[in-house]
Amino acid sequence: MTGAEPITSLQNPHVKRLVRLRQRREREAEGVILIEGARELARAVQAGIRPRALYSCPALYSPEAADLGPTLPGERFELSRAAFEKVSGRENPDGLLGVADQPPARLPDPAPDAVMVVLHGLEKPGNVGAILRTADAAGAAGVLVLGRGADPYGPNVIRSSQGSVFQLPVAVLDEAPALDWLSGHGFTTVACTPDAPRTYWDADLGGRVALLLGPEHAGLPQAWRQTGEAVSIPMHPGSGADSLNVATAAALVLFECARQRRPQVTGGPA
Amino acid sequence: MTGAEPITSLQNPHVKRLVRLRQRREREAEGVILIEGARELARAVQAGIRPRALYSCPALYSPEAADLGPTLPGERFELSRAAFEKVSGRENPDGLLGVADQPPARLPDPAPDAVMVVLHGLEKPGNVGAILRTADAAGAAGVLVLGRGADPYGPNVIRSSQGSVFQLPVAVLDEAPALDWLSGHGFTTVACTPDAPRTYWDADLGGRVALLLGPEHAGLPQAWRQTGEAVSIPMHPGSGADSLNVATAAALVLFECARQRRPQVTGGPA
Repeated sequence: MTGAEPITSLQNPHVKRLVRLRQRREREAEGVILIEGARELARAVQAGIRPRALYSCPALYSPEAADLGPTLPGERFELSRAAFEKVSGRENPDGLLGVADQPPARLPDPAPDAVMVVLHGLEKPGNVGAILRTADAAGAAGVLVLGRGADPYGPNVIRSSQGSVFQLPVAVLDEAPALDWLSGHGFTTVACTPDAPRTYWDADLGGRVALLLGPEHAGLPQAWRQTGEAVSIPMHPGSGADSLNVATAAALVLFECARQRRPQVTGGPA
Repeated sequence: MTGAEPITSLQNPHVKRLVRLRQRREREAEGVILIEGARELARAVQAGIRPRALYSCPALYSPEAADLGPTLPGERFELSRAAFEKVSGRENPDGLLGVADQPPARLPDPAPDAVMVVLHGLEKPGNVGAILRTADAAGAAGVLVLGRGADPYGPNVIRSSQGSVFQLPVAVLDEAPALDWLSGHGFTTVACTPDAPRTYWDADLGGRVALLLGPEHAGLPQAWRQTGEAVSIPMHPGSGADSLNVATAAALVLFECARQRRPQVTGGPA
């Protein structure tokens, strides 16, 4: 593309910087994020994100990457296979990696029946990414990340969200401003906890609802539980399972919100 | 426990065998499974599985492993930290690893409203394990694994199922005998596919129901789709997501089955 020679040295400053940027504190210090993979880059560009730099390795291209690669914006650098594998966070890289500015925090202008997801202290990138993907699919208005859980723009969150993190309004906030924003906009908070007597099926999830999700075992801080309703997902009595994965719980409550919001069909199913 | 010296050599035959047994074909050749971790071993023993051999490393014990370790059955071998880390499949092992006979295939004696989960060609152990955990929590009667997807007794499935694989009846079957068993027991098959016009909310999921789940993109073979109903999970119109993770889809349909089966409450929520 550029006509320049591919970067082959693992000591090249670009390679060393990309390896450093796999760490959150390095990304925060530079104010950038890493976006790896054709699908994730496509979703980011669709959402208006312009990579500043794009690193490619045509020898590793997937068919999707071969189509997308030449169309992407950003200053371009070609890497040898060994150099790309060094900077990639994946087992089977597809040959595309972008560096973009950290997106600004975004809060939605909420509709009267908006559903917000509020994540408290979730550490596992796979869970946070799965929740973002499901929230997007279920039509949530946005996601608030409280305090220092997993970085919603970390490479593993981006990947497991399949790029939904770029689609949805996402903001990392401290607890107090998050509660202020939610109460200022008239949201009812609904904490999802295993010990709540009311099931998610029996709760009225209409109107503006903020779904609070915490770590599987620790659950939510008492202050957050007391601000609104609490709902549980009933475990089958004969089951040996004592809880669900937090991303599974999130999916169930998010799609219950969608079910309660859908247009009422008259006459029953066709 | 045994008074014998701990195994320290990475060339010790026990160590070399345990490393080999991380591969499915080696486990199948010996007819054994690996069960790592206190929680998973506890669930296996509760389900009547007796490890033949138990490998422990007290220096690595979690509090749960320290409590459980001395109570477990099986011939005991102590490993040094380095040896245990060599045989462990985990980043942070808790110092317990058992070897047990491969459990025989189990099919339930299904209740009139039994829900069976049928997995077709799912490769990712994390998805299969998550589905097993959720199926257990939702009260499914059992899980059929068709053909050669992920080994339901692979270490990563056991782990992500949190031991639910030992609780539920699980059988690996070819397609024809699986369909025979289901139709012989009067199951309605319900295929979960993204393109079905009927939503899972609108389907009658009562009676004996077999939920068919295939890989996210490939979906289910045509023959299986034609044997019964097909349902989809509606994506929000404004969403950029085009599908859900298969374990998320499974959770939604399994808990919709549970919702349709719960005793009808009169008088509404308390």
